[in-house]
Amino acid sequence: MRIATFTHQGRRQVGLVSGDRVTPLALDAADASFGALRLIEASAAGKAWPAASGAPIALVEVQLEAPIPLPRRNLFCVGRNYHAHAKELLTSVFKDSDSNVVTWPIVFTKVPESVVGPDAAVCLPGAAISSQIDYEAELVIVIGRGGRNISRADAMDHVFGYTIVNDVTARDVQMRHGQWDLGKSFDTFCPMGPWIVTADELDGRDTRVRCWVTPAGAAPELRQDAQTTDLIFDIPTLVETCSRGITLYPGDLIATGTAAGVGMGMKPPRWLQHGDVVRIEIDGLGVLQNHITAEAA
Amino acid sequence: MRIATFTHQGRRQVGLVSGDRVTPLALDAADASFGALRLIEASAAGKAWPAASGAPIALVEVQLEAPIPLPRRNLFCVGRNYHAHAKELLTSVFKDSDSNVVTWPIVFTKVPESVVGPDAAVCLPGAAISSQIDYEAELVIVIGRGGRNISRADAMDHVFGYTIVNDVTARDVQMRHGQWDLGKSFDTFCPMGPWIVTADELDGRDTRVRCWVTPAGAAPELRQDAQTTDLIFDIPTLVETCSRGITLYPGDLIATGTAAGVGMGMKPPRWLQHGDVVRIEIDGLGVLQNHITAEAA
Repeated sequence: MRIATFTHQGRRQVGLVSGDRVTPLALDAADASFGALRLIEASAAGKAWPAASGAPIALVEVQLEAPIPLPRRNLFCVGRNYHAHAKELLTSVFKDSDSNVVTWPIVFTKVPESVVGPDAAVCLPGAAISSQIDYEAELVIVIGRGGRNISRADAMDHVFGYTIVNDVTARDVQMRHGQWDLGKSFDTFCPMGPWIVTADELDGRDTRVRCWVTPAGAAPELRQDAQTTDLIFDIPTLVETCSRGITLYPGDLIATGTAAGVGMGMKPPRWLQHGDVVRIEIDGLGVLQNHITAEAA
Repeated sequence: MRIATFTHQGRRQVGLVSGDRVTPLALDAADASFGALRLIEASAAGKAWPAASGAPIALVEVQLEAPIPLPRRNLFCVGRNYHAHAKELLTSVFKDSDSNVVTWPIVFTKVPESVVGPDAAVCLPGAAISSQIDYEAELVIVIGRGGRNISRADAMDHVFGYTIVNDVTARDVQMRHGQWDLGKSFDTFCPMGPWIVTADELDGRDTRVRCWVTPAGAAPELRQDAQTTDLIFDIPTLVETCSRGITLYPGDLIATGTAAGVGMGMKPPRWLQHGDVVRIEIDGLGVLQNHITAEAA
């Protein structure tokens, strides 16, 4: 299934996508305000979902939002988790060792309020705050049934599905504070969407992640192109890692890290500029596209 | 004012503490479930607070809870922010430079669900997960009026008040992941309380923070004793830093870092054990005491 959160005729709704249409579900406004979260919680509790409510609506007539517009807590995010990306950072300030492959996953967070939806603007913060804004295309694990100390062997039973984020990053801020959370958490720095695809429809362990940047007035440039089989720490390992000592809850989000091809890795680095469009596509999932603007959020 | 969240006769309430009594305020159950948060939001919006509701209750008759039992997002936390603590880490794995004093604040996070209240148990996660559990006594800034790009000069106008946390940490987990969020976010690893003292009653920029550990059957040992004037990055600087590019909201929490005297800094290190009691006192604020247990949460 593809579960989308969207606005139609001024009202936030949650529905199931089929082809080019979305069928709304009968959620009251309070529950719909959480996007897909209440459905994920219902599934985790073994409860039935609300019935369809009304006729399918053409996707072109709705505004898609982030499937979980305001996560209940910061997103867990994984750093340097593709072999090829670890290698490209060998010549950057993020070099830690000769291989740059770490023994344990690097896990940081992004604040919930950084989340924006498909087609939303990513706002540059102004040069006084940062002038090194970078994109990171990422597959996101959506946790279904919660738990603590989940074993690698059981981990896939806790995966509800997948979505996409662009883990937009202020590189200078990320670097200078040692810990990365601030440089990852700027307002609008977490585009998410276009929807959640459930794990029975997509195996996140083997799919293709691509990212194009289109500078204003120019042609799209394919910057990232990776298969998730190149992950250093795979999806079951990430679920196990994040749940060690820490209870995971339905709707928790784990961004699995980005592939080679970020702006920082280019010679010279190419930072996002006003007018750029960033388009991320994950096979079997869909497309998340956002534009970069110098306007304030 | 001292704003406490507490349970009395099975019901969560929020009230004002005066002497050894607390006067409940007329909040409905839904609002009281957020603890002091709704009052902070009302203040930030220039709205009046609900009236007192009922007679004062003796504090000995209530169970204090964390003043904000479930923060809306991860707590912002500052690392290595006392000169004396930076110095004690020079002989640890956390040595980065000859002085260990950083140029920009180190900011990481703790998940909201790690919060527990006064007198609650801090649960050791089991040796397979971590056997290096440490305490960190910290003054916490409670944000009142929100904002983004708050200047250092304006920062104190955004401080609603202060509380205490014990930033309990699994040192081995903190270290091995590079980023600290996981090792800081175990279930029960964020005791908070005993209440919030408003900024008109306490100047967090100059107060004394002490921490005692009492091993089972032994006498209390004063482990940490510092004045917040020893902070490397002061309170206005921390508010400015966390709000650069990131909107802060009423009720956001910024833990200001811990002083010298953590268990990791001792020779040999002394980790928390089942039966230990950790007592933190901040002058003008109060006492936060919790016991350590090997029992599961």
